[in-house]
Amino acid sequence: MALLHLSTWPEVADYLTESRGLIVPIGSTEQHGPIGLIGTDAICAEVIAKGVGDATGALVAPTINVGMALHHTAFPGTISLRPSTLLLVLRDYLVSLARSGFQRFFFINGHGGNIATVKAAFAETYAALTELQIPGADQVRCELANWFMCPSVTQLARELYGDREGSHATPSEVAVTQFVYPEAIKQGVLSAEVNRDHAIYGAVDFRCRYPDGRMGSDPSLATPEHGQQFYQRAVNDLSQRYRQFLSAE
Amino acid sequence: MALLHLSTWPEVADYLTESRGLIVPIGSTEQHGPIGLIGTDAICAEVIAKGVGDATGALVAPTINVGMALHHTAFPGTISLRPSTLLLVLRDYLVSLARSGFQRFFFINGHGGNIATVKAAFAETYAALTELQIPGADQVRCELANWFMCPSVTQLARELYGDREGSHATPSEVAVTQFVYPEAIKQGVLSAEVNRDHAIYGAVDFRCRYPDGRMGSDPSLATPEHGQQFYQRAVNDLSQRYRQFLSAE
Amino acid sequence: MALLHLSTWPEVADYLTESRGLIVPIGSTEQHGPIGLIGTDAICAEVIAKGVGDATGALVAPTINVGMALHHTAFPGTISLRPSTLLLVLRDYLVSLARSGFQRFFFINGHGGNIATVKAAFAETYAALTELQIPGADQVRCELANWFMCPSVTQLARELYGDREGSHATPSEVAVTQFVYPEAIKQGVLSAEVNRDHAIYGAVDFRCRYPDGRMGSDPSLATPEHGQQFYQRAVNDLSQRYRQFLSAE
Amino acid sequence: MALLHLSTWPEVADYLTESRGLIVPIGSTEQHGPIGLIGTDAICAEVIAKGVGDATGALVAPTINVGMALHHTAFPGTISLRPSTLLLVLRDYLVSLARSGFQRFFFINGHGGNIATVKAAFAETYAALTELQIPGADQVRCELANWFMCPSVTQLARELYGDREGSHATPSEVAVTQFVYPEAIKQGVLSAEVNRDHAIYGAVDFRCRYPDGRMGSDPSLATPEHGQQFYQRAVNDLSQRYRQFLSAE
Amino acid sequence: MALLHLSTWPEVADYLTESRGLIVPIGSTEQHGPIGLIGTDAICAEVIAKGVGDATGALVAPTINVGMALHHTAFPGTISLRPSTLLLVLRDYLVSLARSGFQRFFFINGHGGNIATVKAAFAETYAALTELQIPGADQVRCELANWFMCPSVTQLARELYGDREGSHATPSEVAVTQFVYPEAIKQGVLSAEVNRDHAIYGAVDFRCRYPDGRMGSDPSLATPEHGQQFYQRAVNDLSQRYRQFLSAE
Amino acid sequence: MALLHLSTWPEVADYLTESRGLIVPIGSTEQHGPIGLIGTDAICAEVIAKGVGDATGALVAPTINVGMALHHTAFPGTISLRPSTLLLVLRDYLVSLARSGFQRFFFINGHGGNIATVKAAFAETYAALTELQIPGADQVRCELANWFMCPSVTQLARELYGDREGSHATPSEVAVTQFVYPEAIKQGVLSAEVNRDHAIYGAVDFRCRYPDGRMGSDPSLATPEHGQQFYQRAVNDLSQRYRQFLSAE
Ligand code: NI
Ligand code: NI
Ligand code: NI
Ligand code: NI
Ligand code: NI
Ligand code: NI
Repeated sequence: MALLHLSTWPEVADYLTESRGLIVPIGSTEQHGPIGLIGTDAICAEVIAKGVGDATGALVAPTINVGMALHHTAFPGTISLRPSTLLLVLRDYLVSLARSGFQRFFFINGHGGNIATVKAAFAETYAALTELQIPGADQVRCELANWFMCPSVTQLARELYGDREGSHATPSEVAVTQFVYPEAIKQGVLSAEVNRDHAIYGAVDFRCRYPDGRMGSDPSLATPEHGQQFYQRAVNDLSQRYRQFLSAE
Repeated sequence: MALLHLSTWPEVADYLTESRGLIVPIGSTEQHGPIGLIGTDAICAEVIAKGVGDATGALVAPTINVGMALHHTAFPGTISLRPSTLLLVLRDYLVSLARSGFQRFFFINGHGGNIATVKAAFAETYAALTELQIPGADQVRCELANWFMCPSVTQLARELYGDREGSHATPSEVAVTQFVYPEAIKQGVLSAEVNRDHAIYGAVDFRCRYPDGRMGSDPSLATPEHGQQFYQRAVNDLSQRYRQFLSAE
Repeated sequence: MALLHLSTWPEVADYLTESRGLIVPIGSTEQHGPIGLIGTDAICAEVIAKGVGDATGALVAPTINVGMALHHTAFPGTISLRPSTLLLVLRDYLVSLARSGFQRFFFINGHGGNIATVKAAFAETYAALTELQIPGADQVRCELANWFMCPSVTQLARELYGDREGSHATPSEVAVTQFVYPEAIKQGVLSAEVNRDHAIYGAVDFRCRYPDGRMGSDPSLATPEHGQQFYQRAVNDLSQRYRQFLSAE
Repeated sequence: MALLHLSTWPEVADYLTESRGLIVPIGSTEQHGPIGLIGTDAICAEVIAKGVGDATGALVAPTINVGMALHHTAFPGTISLRPSTLLLVLRDYLVSLARSGFQRFFFINGHGGNIATVKAAFAETYAALTELQIPGADQVRCELANWFMCPSVTQLARELYGDREGSHATPSEVAVTQFVYPEAIKQGVLSAEVNRDHAIYGAVDFRCRYPDGRMGSDPSLATPEHGQQFYQRAVNDLSQRYRQFLSAE
Repeated sequence: MALLHLSTWPEVADYLTESRGLIVPIGSTEQHGPIGLIGTDAICAEVIAKGVGDATGALVAPTINVGMALHHTAFPGTISLRPSTLLLVLRDYLVSLARSGFQRFFFINGHGGNIATVKAAFAETYAALTELQIPGADQVRCELANWFMCPSVTQLARELYGDREGSHATPSEVAVTQFVYPEAIKQGVLSAEVNRDHAIYGAVDFRCRYPDGRMGSDPSLATPEHGQQFYQRAVNDLSQRYRQFLSAE
Repeated sequence: MALLHLSTWPEVADYLTESRGLIVPIGSTEQHGPIGLIGTDAICAEVIAKGVGDATGALVAPTINVGMALHHTAFPGTISLRPSTLLLVLRDYLVSLARSGFQRFFFINGHGGNIATVKAAFAETYAALTELQIPGADQVRCELANWFMCPSVTQLARELYGDREGSHATPSEVAVTQFVYPEAIKQGVLSAEVNRDHAIYGAVDFRCRYPDGRMGSDPSLATPEHGQQFYQRAVNDLSQRYRQFLSAE
């Protein structure tokens, strides 16, 4: 593995003679309930991206640690880009990197709220690269890989937590953060009752429906050991997927 | 049912005393293979939206007939908004309509390529409405309903066409257009071989992978009678879903 | 005639071997007084565009049915793009279509409020096409044709309605909608007094000056038969103008 | 008269207790043929605006000396904003000034190419002022007055120059600049033949049609004395129009 | 010297065969305390730019007389562009002029508040010119020269005014305006006490800290004779600097 | 100290009852010469921000690790936002956080190329917060602190390296990265000759002037021990400055 930010530009130039691939972790900085870390989505994406980098020899870009979390902004500490801003950010990243010669961008994502905007950004950027006539523009490919949707991950979550996994501030993602930052494991008494399964609209509405920020989850079930298991499974699944992405015609 | 464009403003004012709901059809203007109509996605969304309007008494907005189809722009006749533009269009629609008093927006969508941008636009708009302090901003809800993903529709497509349904320029959507515009049924000899299952990247890449524009589909299987069946199933499913959307707390 | 949305991409490719011209109807979705349809401007532009297409063999694009109607947004049911958004929409349309090979864009417009923004968009787009180095960029020409300003149309309106034609929600445009949608003819008692000749500023100001939405007009004078006459005259005038547009050096 | 840039803020505060009106000259910086000045449109707008300020006691803002001249950019020395940029500029001006308390904006314009974008900007800004909830937003009114379209001006041009007035780099506007800057009167031999009456499309096309930059005009007919007459007539007409603008309900 | 707005396009074409340089004055339209002119920054930049043009033979563009003055907008008469707008304005200027063949842009600036945005605009524009593939894009250079920071200017200000020079509505800049417009010298009683040295945040905060608009300055010390001295020193310093800028490899 | 991303939202809510301050590290991802890390600026900003957080009890936001580095984009591995994008990013951050109740934003910056855009973004955002009427908008203050400009830092650099400190890929910043990541210390033979003191224009020009990416620096002089000293000095200086920032009226 190598991390882009711990490399020099000649090292990157060398890397590009052997591979056009780059892993880009993307997370979010948003409330994760009473005991989940605000950085949960970025922490998970980053550690798993590094793991995939280790397993595959891929270069790993710095983590995009603020994403699209407008629906969480009624909770203090949340930072969100608007979709229109995130779209420009991703365009600028990809234009810079495509000029360098990168052509296979594998985004490892830790946050469901990013998915729509990231996909929209891919479409916008393919056209922009062509318009800018960047060499190799028509060869550029982006893939979005959500670690929390890996089959082996969702299966484990189901086994360990059943329907107490929920869909936000989940024990699985909290477990990964406990594995990475055992010193930052939070204690707290969670209400047994927790809302679930509402659709997501605006920020005020969200906080009304989910007063402590959890969506149907019980993060008190999380342990660092679980976290290590989730980490390992995600790394395995995504490493395989990255290799396929690179080798596809 | 009523169509917004065939109503007067006092009629809309009356409607708003009874319902806050609006159906917005959204399609695309893009190549649909050798015998599929360029307007397929808009035609399907519009006719089904009108059907749902008839069934539920909901008001139906004019069809957004150009969407996000950048990946089809290497074929002549395709018109696409960039995601960043479509995002602004949807924002402007929703701001106008929320000022009128509408609060439940049910988008009936005919094009997979719109999904990411439309969802991003919803998030952007919820925040914008709050920022603009439009009365009722925090009560606004948007839902995206893809007619071609209705369970009863996909089941029928599987029964009728198996894996020859494909994923673009499908016999099911072509059938709906034949039902609506029997005078515009196209003939043509289709190659038996057709590519499928590639991911979608830029427009040039797309045309290389899918030279005649079809993605794994055999639209020659379509008939107007099939179209009527698809229409009816989509209307039934979505009418029920619209009612639930309106009545949800 | 052919409609773009009822054509296939190979048909468009064939058309382009013979003509570079395209007709684009553009309207608005806005209040048209107590008995005028919200879709009046789009309905008129669309039907006349189809007529011109029939008469000239030109291809007709899908109607842009929402335009610049910010000054009408204090009446429920109006949808407006901001000028800055409409400008991007038109740019995206023209970029897509110029890539296809179209070079003569004849916009048939049904709404005075669109004129300024559409002309600004033409200027913005000529420069953008050159910047993008699209083949043939410097040959692209756009023309804006307002059907309601055709000499034969304004003459008939004067003969039939005198100064009761007014300038918004006019009997002439209402007549055309009655010709197209006789099933949607609205009844209503109109005040004899109606304001006229104020300049147009913001939406709140507009509704103060024109409380029922009419600007100096008496749409109760409209009949479907009038509508047919207006339609025929507009089609004749604009067909001739389109041919001149195509054949100009 | 007073010029905003030669006033202090307490003087402006005093002025606002008596008048809400402001005159804003807007021109362009663009080629004006072989002997016309690049600053013609700004020079004319500015001197006439100052004259109107003198006659009416209105405050006069600094001249917007670069406008929308994209079609002239194939000639060296032309500077143009894109319409989308000019729209933002005008919005920012009007938001700043409306916060100060100004409510009647009388734009004296020297360039036909600005008209569409300025009008679009007015519409965009009325809505923006309302969205920003600036006090008095709904009372703001903007008017665009093109000095070269004043009836007394066009009449004089017809008398003096007949059809050699043309439509760009006209003797009338050149005459005004000669009146203002007699030291900058240019000599040059003009071709007797000059193209006229073509529509305006992109910049490359424009230079092909109008190789020396004139559109049907013979600016060699201009004299400083003519310029003084045009100046006087424009000031008279526009002063009256400004007074009506201020006093209108 | 020559002023762009008093030149013809063939004169500009000739100039470009000998020089690629252009001087662009940029100021602001903002409160300058009880006796300073609202146009102070534009007036100073313009007169000094003309002086540098005289001394060096450089062409001088029209003055950008409205800049980034958001922090002054709580005082009436201030007009400000937002940084994002000014950035687009500068981009459009530079793109137009680089197409003409200009490659050395020497901005003479009269307003500290412009510095950050102007520098950001330079960076944005270098990349844009390259993206647009404008001939010579990679040779374009921009320099920002703040006249009030010229060593000989700050030295004189220190000698004449000591710490009563302050940092806004300074006697030195007021003196230059008195030199240029002796007819617009304002009288007024200034409080002896004046705040100074606060950082600048938003507009409301600014007016609280600096109630009459001055920042630590005593503009009553200004005289037209001082103004002439400042003018001469700035012209000398900047003329030398312009020559170095042009001749640098 | 606390890191925002290792906190929960209730912890942030608690923090806000005692302090309105937040530290935001901002760096860049750009070439740093043959042996400097691409992440240098982000690494330095982040570690020093954490040190200041430890010393002052301030909360520390996630690092903005990609900034404005367009002039470095001709070297592979550089990622840059355009100034217009970074401006939106900072606006979105500050709007989110101001809604949470934060009012004192202390940016610790590791990259000279960010300064102009960050300052422009502050100005844009103050106005935006007021426009959005966010509670406390007029109390929001932002400060930009460049660690590499701390007096104690520049003094040490001068002592240790003299003029071999240079201005990009400096031994001082490389030393800090060696202190943080001793495992990523790079070896390499540097040319003795290195260009210095050129102004910065576009990316192509930059690489011509500075072929290996260094600007007048000799990073081979760096040691981890130096890095610790720089770190300590920067933390001391900036901790004091942060306290003053918080306590200023
Ligand atoms: Ni999460
Ligand atoms: Ni389809
Ligand atoms: Ni109408
Ligand atoms: Ni002119
Ligand atoms: Ni000043
Ligand atoms: Ni650095």
